[in-house]
Amino acid sequence: MLTVVLPDGSQKKFDSPVTCYDVAADIGTGLAKSAIAAEVDGRPADLRYQLPESGEVNLRILTKRDPEALGILRHSTAHVMAQAVMRLFDGVQLAFGPTTATGFYYDISAPQPIKEEDFPKIEAEMKKIVKENQKFERLEQPRDEALQLCSELDQKFKVEHIKTGLGEESHVSFYRQGEFIDLCRGVHIPSTGHIGKAFKLLSIAGAYWKGDANREQLQRLYGTVFFDKQELQDHLHRLEEARKRDHRVLGKQHELFHIDSTVGSGLILWLPKGATVRGLLEEFLRTELRNRGYEAVYTPHVGRVELYETSGHFPYYKESQFAPLCEHDAGGLVEYWMDQLKEGNLDREGEAKLLDAARLMGFDAEIDADSPAEERLAALNTWAHQHERYLLKPMNCPHHIMIYKSKPRSYRDLPVRLAEFGTVYRYEQSGELSGMTRVRGFTQDDAHIFCTEDQVADEVRGCIEFTLKVLKSLGMENYRARLGFRDPDSTKYVGSPEQWDRAEKAIEQVAREMNLPGCVPEAGEAAFYGPKIDFVVTDCIGREWQLGTVQLDYNLPSEQRFALEYTGADNTQHRPVMIHRAPLGSMERFIGVLIEHFAGAFPLWLAPEQVRVLTVSDKSEEYGRQVEKQLTAAGLRASGDYRGAKLGAKIREAQLELVPYMFVVGEKDRDNGTVTVRDRIDGDLGAMTVEDALAKLQEEITSRQVRQVAEQTVGAEISDKGVGNEY
Amino acid sequence: MLTVVLPDGSQKKFDSPVTCYDVAADIGTGLAKSAIAAEVDGRPADLRYQLPESGEVNLRILTKRDPEALGILRHSTAHVMAQAVMRLFDGVQLAFGPTTATGFYYDISAPQPIKEEDFPKIEAEMKKIVKENQKFERLEQPRDEALQLCSELDQKFKVEHIKTGLGEESHVSFYRQGEFIDLCRGVHIPSTGHIGKAFKLLSIAGAYWKGDANREQLQRLYGTVFFDKQELQDHLHRLEEARKRDHRVLGKQHELFHIDSTVGSGLILWLPKGATVRGLLEEFLRTELRNRGYEAVYTPHVGRVELYETSGHFPYYKESQFAPLCEHDAGGLVEYWMDQLKEGNLDREGEAKLLDAARLMGFDAEIDADSPAEERLAALNTWAHQHERYLLKPMNCPHHIMIYKSKPRSYRDLPVRLAEFGTVYRYEQSGELSGMTRVRGFTQDDAHIFCTEDQVADEVRGCIEFTLKVLKSLGMENYRARLGFRDPDSTKYVGSPEQWDRAEKAIEQVAREMNLPGCVPEAGEAAFYGPKIDFVVTDCIGREWQLGTVQLDYNLPSEQRFALEYTGADNTQHRPVMIHRAPLGSMERFIGVLIEHFAGAFPLWLAPEQVRVLTVSDKSEEYGRQVEKQLTAAGLRASGDYRGAKLGAKIREAQLELVPYMFVVGEKDRDNGTVTVRDRIDGDLGAMTVEDALAKLQEEITSRQVRQVAEQTVGAEISDKGVGNEY
Repeated sequence: MLTVVLPDGSQKKFDSPVTCYDVAADIGTGLAKSAIAAEVDGRPADLRYQLPESGEVNLRILTKRDPEALGILRHSTAHVMAQAVMRLFDGVQLAFGPTTATGFYYDISAPQPIKEEDFPKIEAEMKKIVKENQKFERLEQPRDEALQLCSELDQKFKVEHIKTGLGEESHVSFYRQGEFIDLCRGVHIPSTGHIGKAFKLLSIAGAYWKGDANREQLQRLYGTVFFDKQELQDHLHRLEEARKRDHRVLGKQHELFHIDSTVGSGLILWLPKGATVRGLLEEFLRTELRNRGYEAVYTPHVGRVELYETSGHFPYYKESQFAPLCEHDAGGLVEYWMDQLKEGNLDREGEAKLLDAARLMGFDAEIDADSPAEERLAALNTWAHQHERYLLKPMNCPHHIMIYKSKPRSYRDLPVRLAEFGTVYRYEQSGELSGMTRVRGFTQDDAHIFCTEDQVADEVRGCIEFTLKVLKSLGMENYRARLGFRDPDSTKYVGSPEQWDRAEKAIEQVAREMNLPGCVPEAGEAAFYGPKIDFVVTDCIGREWQLGTVQLDYNLPSEQRFALEYTGADNTQHRPVMIHRAPLGSMERFIGVLIEHFAGAFPLWLAPEQVRVLTVSDKSEEYGRQVEKQLTAAGLRASGDYRGAKLGAKIREAQLELVPYMFVVGEKDRDNGTVTVRDRIDGDLGAMTVEDALAKLQEEITSRQVRQVAEQTVGAEISDKGVGNEY
Repeated sequence: MLTVVLPDGSQKKFDSPVTCYDVAADIGTGLAKSAIAAEVDGRPADLRYQLPESGEVNLRILTKRDPEALGILRHSTAHVMAQAVMRLFDGVQLAFGPTTATGFYYDISAPQPIKEEDFPKIEAEMKKIVKENQKFERLEQPRDEALQLCSELDQKFKVEHIKTGLGEESHVSFYRQGEFIDLCRGVHIPSTGHIGKAFKLLSIAGAYWKGDANREQLQRLYGTVFFDKQELQDHLHRLEEARKRDHRVLGKQHELFHIDSTVGSGLILWLPKGATVRGLLEEFLRTELRNRGYEAVYTPHVGRVELYETSGHFPYYKESQFAPLCEHDAGGLVEYWMDQLKEGNLDREGEAKLLDAARLMGFDAEIDADSPAEERLAALNTWAHQHERYLLKPMNCPHHIMIYKSKPRSYRDLPVRLAEFGTVYRYEQSGELSGMTRVRGFTQDDAHIFCTEDQVADEVRGCIEFTLKVLKSLGMENYRARLGFRDPDSTKYVGSPEQWDRAEKAIEQVAREMNLPGCVPEAGEAAFYGPKIDFVVTDCIGREWQLGTVQLDYNLPSEQRFALEYTGADNTQHRPVMIHRAPLGSMERFIGVLIEHFAGAFPLWLAPEQVRVLTVSDKSEEYGRQVEKQLTAAGLRASGDYRGAKLGAKIREAQLELVPYMFVVGEKDRDNGTVTVRDRIDGDLGAMTVEDALAKLQEEITSRQVRQVAEQTVGAEISDKGVGNEY
């Protein structure tokens, strides 16, 4: 006798063997028909899964309304895509075919590479397979038979994976639909007919077998599928919208930034227009910083390696840093040598070779080859330290700490708030680089607050208020706060559990008091030195971006690190708490996101070109130039288009170049001292005196109005009505 | 028969042998008495120099009024100092004892180091020697006898110098006064009595034999001497004044900047107050840049080595750059290896050792050991280039050039003026570092102008006007322009002589049209890429500082370098001219000089703290805080001193901290809504309404008044009257 417990707590009893599907059918034919898969005792299962004959199981029948269902559909569709490809192309080798957050892909190797032109053919074949409504059948095979099967199928990647990638399992599962059979854990939909018509192949990218650049190169075929055709349409529209908002494309088109491989990947050259936006944002922040009692500082972009050894950033984060600069040519060699010795993978012969080379390069330390590795390491270390080694700074904190330490501090001086637009450098892997949002050099709108334990809550509150003010000024009001706490099971954090508990509690309490949206503590999301609040902003097409951050730090001030102190009211020495904060995060990333958020059309106060004077004909050129001069003198970023071209063409060009306002001047305007104002968003606003037009713009600038977001949100939401295509 | 031609063209004939002194005596006893030395046919000579017996010579008798005389006096006094030291201390070894721009020194090695406490004793002995009025006698010795003599004198440095430092000369000269004899080219005064009383020993510093840190360490004894006691007094006063103005001391005292060895030597940490001054200067420059049609850009602080190979900065300036960062650990090794191969000083065995080490580190390029060095080098180079190498940027130009190149340019776009506060890094030797004025990282107020040949003159003129505006706004109106042209005999310059001629002519013409003071072309003072104008500013105690610069460049745009282009009106491609310019030069150096110029007391518009509210008693505290708030709200950098201390003490403290204005508030002020204004320079200005006081300060700020310089110039000029001691 089997007892099946359903999600609502009700029970069903069966005295003969049943599958998940049987239970669904027992509940109702509607459910059986819409069922996609199941969850047995919390684990996903095929609908055909045979339940045990006795005992008790918890069963959930999954339909398309369940969040897990879409992933299962996508996984099955990946199989169908592979099946179609195998039917159409010879000699195809399959690698892996997982789902992604928005679809699926399959990595394959084909003697004749697949092209995007082949997509209609493949999609047509997939439609056929869907129509064939083939069952997804699970086969469990002993390991040796599985190997045999994959060999027979001539699938070398699968063979390798069974041999080396599957651990100790004695049995291996396959799924079969029709003639297609694939090594797979599952689970899958009952049959290909459940896929329907809402699928689409999207793109082809390159990939490596097991992600290893030294292994076979593969083609990654991307696709997506939904239960509902409208959902697919919406998704494709969002993709299209995102493509049109791509800051890499807009950044080039509107001359905001440039990346040049001769300078280096991931290193941003800010073109004048992008630099204008950044400069205005910095100016805005500088004013806020001043009003909030921060003190500006400037620090160099390098620091001695010792500084980062003290801070713990080196060698802890060495992999993501630019290599050290060494005064001595032998620096790189010694670095390598020390690493190898530390990790114990250098034999005596290898060491002798390195020593030979180093001696040649002037390395003159005494090294007793018979001494233990630690001593040999210490000798190298001493030598390396005598020869100054510098790091490009991966963080600003150690520099600000040295400023804090530059004089004795008293409790009366606290909080000390040191702010800097500090450019830092991190060596992201080339594959991870993307425009301005993932770079190797970026400027943090950074500040470090040194305060007493008693001041922590107020300071964290101040940081949050600052961040919210900034986000609001940029029309980014859709955000949530994420509390990044430590993973209690990990050992990667520095500082005692008690310190962490205190810090985490303080942050959570303030965030809750302020009713921040979100605020769910997430374990394992903390920095290695302390818990944090990250601000995750949703842009106007619904994508989330992690931007600003407030991080508590009980670690860097500690005895083991920089041993920071202040003299308390009791005249004894105390340890300050440190807060790292950056409302925007990084200028590069933030402005990259802003470009996408505004689809390149910045609000008036940030627009690189705010207003363009357009002449109707030569007759108003002199007047036009006078108006332009008047605008420039009033501090506006103005230009003029005095060419002989037709007004319509000039307007079109200004619209395309996203200039917020156009002041059209004809003979009548000249005679009346007016301009005919054209708003990029709302169109013609009619004639006004130059003074009135100027005042209107200045009001919009001073109040930092953001009119774009509303417009674009509408555009995105009612996309199917053909609006929002301006970009 | 000898004919002596005197400077006025008159001739004297002698038929028996005469010395220079004899001729002077023949002219007049007054001249003979005041004669110091002579110049025979343009070369310096002792007064005792025996003129040839026949023929014709040009003779100038030098007295203390001739500019060359002071150097001769100083050189002789260095000998007298050495003589005194030898009399007083045993076992002293003499190295070199030359003159400097303001005095002399002698490097010595003494078993018992000399201390500054010994100076009075040495000076007393020198006075004795002066009184003894010993003759300076020149002895010419064959080389072997000279060696013999120095050995007998037990002077090992002199022995070494005769052996290795004197070239091919067959005879060597010595000078003797009394018992003291020294290897010396001369020339000298006739006798020690000419020295008089206006000398002083100043300080002791460390030095190395022949300036080589691997050789013996020596003590450098500095002293100075003048013909006139008043001149010595004035000089000592200037030294004292310079000491009091030392920006390293003031920078620490007034918390402007900090250098921390943990961060690195020569790397400036700008403390909040110094950063405020820098921020205000940058803001001022940003406004000027905007008004003058410059476009701001931002670029990263690193670039790939290839970029600097193209620009010619690498390996040309390698010695003064931070070492490259290499993606690969083996980078340092390969760098070294390439250098050695290039210079041809690596034998096959050495190369094999390096190869062994490199292979161990993953270096996998094929190197045929039998191929010529160029090919082996090429293999290394290829490999090194595959592994990205980065340099900390030593200049901003290559980055700005890549921005210029980021899109096609037309003649209509020119001039393109790209500006950036660009921080660059150069590896100055530790011994050359000094506070903010000689550093390893500095921020240039940099810009690069790309223009047509026709635009050069106007652009250079614009740059000069910009520089003069800036200098004037900072009260630095005492300057000269130095035209740095190429040394026609040197091969270190890039670009054709025709290009250089054109550039030099253009610069000189503009400078002359603008009537710039100075304007004397100086050969050999050009940058390697083009001629330049440097602005050399004289500070208020008479020292010269090289600050702003305007440099023409026909080289970097060239085919061999970055091959810059623009489409001309004729629709063909042309090459733009490039101008590098920086009105301040470097923020670090400039503000270092400003600190000394103003002795730390910045003009109101730049002062980190502009006004301090001082309460007379508790009773006016509330009112004081309200006034402070009013000042801050009006944008002033204000603070308040509300302690219970006496008003006199508070005023003293504010004066010492160089706060330009103090607003004293008592009960009467509170009742009347006034403040009693105290000006740091002029003292009590009486009571004013807060509004009037605020308006007064704002007027001084807006007009960027510089009241300090006049005050200090007076201080320096009439120093002997005891004025100017406030600092």
